Amino acid sequence: MADKKQQEFVKEITPMEVDFSQWYTDVILKTDMVDYAPVKGCMVIKPYGYGVWEGIQRVADRRFKATGHKNAYFPLLIPESYLKKEAEHFEGFAPEVLWVTHGGSEELTERLFIRPTSETIICDMYSKWVQSYRDLPLLINQWCNVVRWEKTTRPFLRTAEFLWQEGHTVHADEEEAQKETMQMLEIYRQVAEDELAMPVILGQKSEKEKFAGALRTYTMEAMMHDGKALQAGTSHNLGQHFSKMFDIQFLDRDGVLKYAYSTSWGISTRLIGGIIMVHGDNRGLKMPPRIAPIQVIVIPIAFHKEGVLDKVKAVKEELEKCFRVEIDDRDTYSPGWKFNEWEMKGVPIRMEIGPRDIENNQVTIARRDTLEKFTVSMDNLTETISGLLDEIHTTMFNKALKNRENKTYTTTDYEEFKKIMQNTPGFVKTMWCGSRECEDKLKEDTNATIRCIPFNQEHVGDECLICGGKAEKMVYAAKAY
Amino acid sequence: MADKKQQEFVKEITPMEVDFSQWYTDVILKTDMVDYAPVKGCMVIKPYGYGVWEGIQRVADRRFKATGHKNAYFPLLIPESYLKKEAEHFEGFAPEVLWVTHGGSEELTERLFIRPTSETIICDMYSKWVQSYRDLPLLINQWCNVVRWEKTTRPFLRTAEFLWQEGHTVHADEEEAQKETMQMLEIYRQVAEDELAMPVILGQKSEKEKFAGALRTYTMEAMMHDGKALQAGTSHNLGQHFSKMFDIQFLDRDGVLKYAYSTSWGISTRLIGGIIMVHGDNRGLKMPPRIAPIQVIVIPIAFHKEGVLDKVKAVKEELEKCFRVEIDDRDTYSPGWKFNEWEMKGVPIRMEIGPRDIENNQVTIARRDTLEKFTVSMDNLTETISGLLDEIHTTMFNKALKNRENKTYTTTDYEEFKKIMQNTPGFVKTMWCGSRECEDKLKEDTNATIRCIPFNQEHVGDECLICGGKAEKMVYAAKAY
Repeated sequence: MADKKQQEFVKEITPMEVDFSQWYTDVILKTDMVDYAPVKGCMVIKPYGYGVWEGIQRVADRRFKATGHKNAYFPLLIPESYLKKEAEHFEGFAPEVLWVTHGGSEELTERLFIRPTSETIICDMYSKWVQSYRDLPLLINQWCNVVRWEKTTRPFLRTAEFLWQEGHTVHADEEEAQKETMQMLEIYRQVAEDELAMPVILGQKSEKEKFAGALRTYTMEAMMHDGKALQAGTSHNLGQHFSKMFDIQFLDRDGVLKYAYSTSWGISTRLIGGIIMVHGDNRGLKMPPRIAPIQVIVIPIAFHKEGVLDKVKAVKEELEKCFRVEIDDRDTYSPGWKFNEWEMKGVPIRMEIGPRDIENNQVTIARRDTLEKFTVSMDNLTETISGLLDEIHTTMFNKALKNRENKTYTTTDYEEFKKIMQNTPGFVKTMWCGSRECEDKLKEDTNATIRCIPFNQEHVGDECLICGGKAEKMVYAAKAY
Repeated sequence: MADKKQQEFVKEITPMEVDFSQWYTDVILKTDMVDYAPVKGCMVIKPYGYGVWEGIQRVADRRFKATGHKNAYFPLLIPESYLKKEAEHFEGFAPEVLWVTHGGSEELTERLFIRPTSETIICDMYSKWVQSYRDLPLLINQWCNVVRWEKTTRPFLRTAEFLWQEGHTVHADEEEAQKETMQMLEIYRQVAEDELAMPVILGQKSEKEKFAGALRTYTMEAMMHDGKALQAGTSHNLGQHFSKMFDIQFLDRDGVLKYAYSTSWGISTRLIGGIIMVHGDNRGLKMPPRIAPIQVIVIPIAFHKEGVLDKVKAVKEELEKCFRVEIDDRDTYSPGWKFNEWEMKGVPIRMEIGPRDIENNQVTIARRDTLEKFTVSMDNLTETISGLLDEIHTTMFNKALKNRENKTYTTTDYEEFKKIMQNTPGFVKTMWCGSRECEDKLKEDTNATIRCIPFNQEHVGDECLICGGKAEKMVYAAKAY
């Protein structure tokens, strides 16, 4: 019976191979990750989806604090005049900001915009707070919502409102600012790879793709299951641009008044979309164990039988000291229905406990990553589960890496490149001369973009993919979300 | 020298007795809790202030989850039509909402307002999510920012934008909704009393003071040091009002389609203002140990001497397994300056470690609550600190309770009441007939309001304070923030 139900259940999700985009939509809606909001392009993050965000916050925030950053909160609303202070920044964001014009029935004297990012307001405050070298470095992060009024939206990947963290730091010299920029990119890599089991490529963005107002933007790029890229986090060295516009000056040890150097860096709820598209399969989600809202779901079998529920509760009590564990003891659903439900929701470990398990001092385990089912002893369960979760993490990471390797190509032949993009999208290692013209042409011809100039340079040719001119930089090109 | 600096330092804070309001402003600015934002009525919560909010979030969120609630996230922006669905709610909030009218340079087809609270959008989503009795109870909370465009603002106490949590639950019957409403009020009491060392009075709000659209509003009221009341948290039984307006219906076990019952409840960054005004003194802040961003500040004495910094780091390493500990090893400030700084910031325990302490296998402790200074052994330091923090919590709670008792009066004589409000503001236990007329007159005559009808009723008379008519309910009246 369980098998039959399973088939029915799974049928509700469009297979990836048929329509990856529809698969994504089916998965996020059917697993209660998200719902569409009544406002265009906005989403409601449901408890199961928000649990993933709480996991990401936990593993990122810990690292921010360990490197000396503190959280703060800056206003949602920013006066219009602020946006105009930094021309490059203004051009980048003005088309997509939302304007507040009235309070109650009164018109405001100056229009306010909802933050699309907070450099302007934060730099303005910093210009008050930074006076002396003793005030530096200033290492602040904020977890908040931002709004960008985008035309084309998709839950998690691109939404009008999204949740993120934005770090904003100020430093006395250029070297320290660069070091901070790179440190935060490395922390993002740890979050992605060591926590979300999501392999990433680190590199620098092109001038065209860099953040509005930045000196240099660094990125981590992840490959989704369908071969497309997701920009999963960025770290910007802002140089002195913002400190000059907002007058962040400090009196240095040598008695000279100097402009400071600043950085900013962010990851967002977009990462949740990444988790789904990197790890998911035709049965639904696969949650990376270290941030899974539920790591172990315990399902009592024949739980009207004496002793079953007691045992299940005892096991939960033991495990919840170390793991996020829940019991599904709803009497309104059959075990088979529950198996499918939690499989679809991607809980890494399903644990079944029934009379026979109790008799044999064992529990039955089903791994979501490999779908293997086996029994383990009730003794040392904490250790067993801990080991299993690590193993699942590694298996998931390796599987994602394998997918990326399989879909990574190398060519400097433009015709071949076009074919790849049309038939088997993936990452292409290629050469680029560095010109904006070639970058624009690539996008126009193929809809692919230069994702980054990776730190890990390889020699794959000497000529630009697009113009055939001299090229010194190897780049990754791909279609992207 | 330390003494002289101390005097200079403290001089910067206006004494409470001279001007309580100026004392508050001095304290919050000088301790880096907050700064004024460039937008009218908005604040920037600086890292030290935000650390307090993180503490409150931690102790509240733990309790929400332990009682089965999960976090989610709903949109910041709500279509205009939603506000109009519930007339009472609309009247309450329409005058103070901010309106978004443009995205980029385009006018929006429907105006959006920034959430002042989220009943409307959440109930609209719930009407989709709740179909059957199996979907109930629905227990969701959200941590977010809200905006109310108020005329008179003060950092933490009343700001245009503030941070809060809003719980929104749906239940199958009235009894369960009432039970939830009371449960959350009890959790708020625990947060206030057991975590923030802030004694509160629990009771019901009058019809006039209840939440717009609620059946019944319950509140916890805290007394500030100056005798004024602060509404520190509210829990609303919304009855079927919102479920009827937003069509939250479910098919019950008996096959009948029924309207659900809902609740909502919230605490906000206002509590930070409460902490400051309940516990602070003329030297500055006093942080309740259980939510203090820094519980122990370790100050190395003569730290150029061999072994001092190593010892300080070893002690920190031991203590930070259980506590929030920081070392102040800045070489740009003297120990005396640091003592004053951390005293002003209200860190519960200051620990000094110098060569003599090391020689004697001891550390020097200064308690912020009693200002006592003494030495304790380096052995079992974790236990000692744990005990001390508990003691400080209790001392602070008792001191605040004593202040409330000293400033709580009982009278049903209106002339006496007026004198109290004019000369020695505090809580007054009195009788009220229940009429809106008397409630309005009280406010007009004295600027005091009926804070609540406490659960803990005492017999203090039979006649209404204001009209002299028959009165059955004892109430607390006070001036309020």
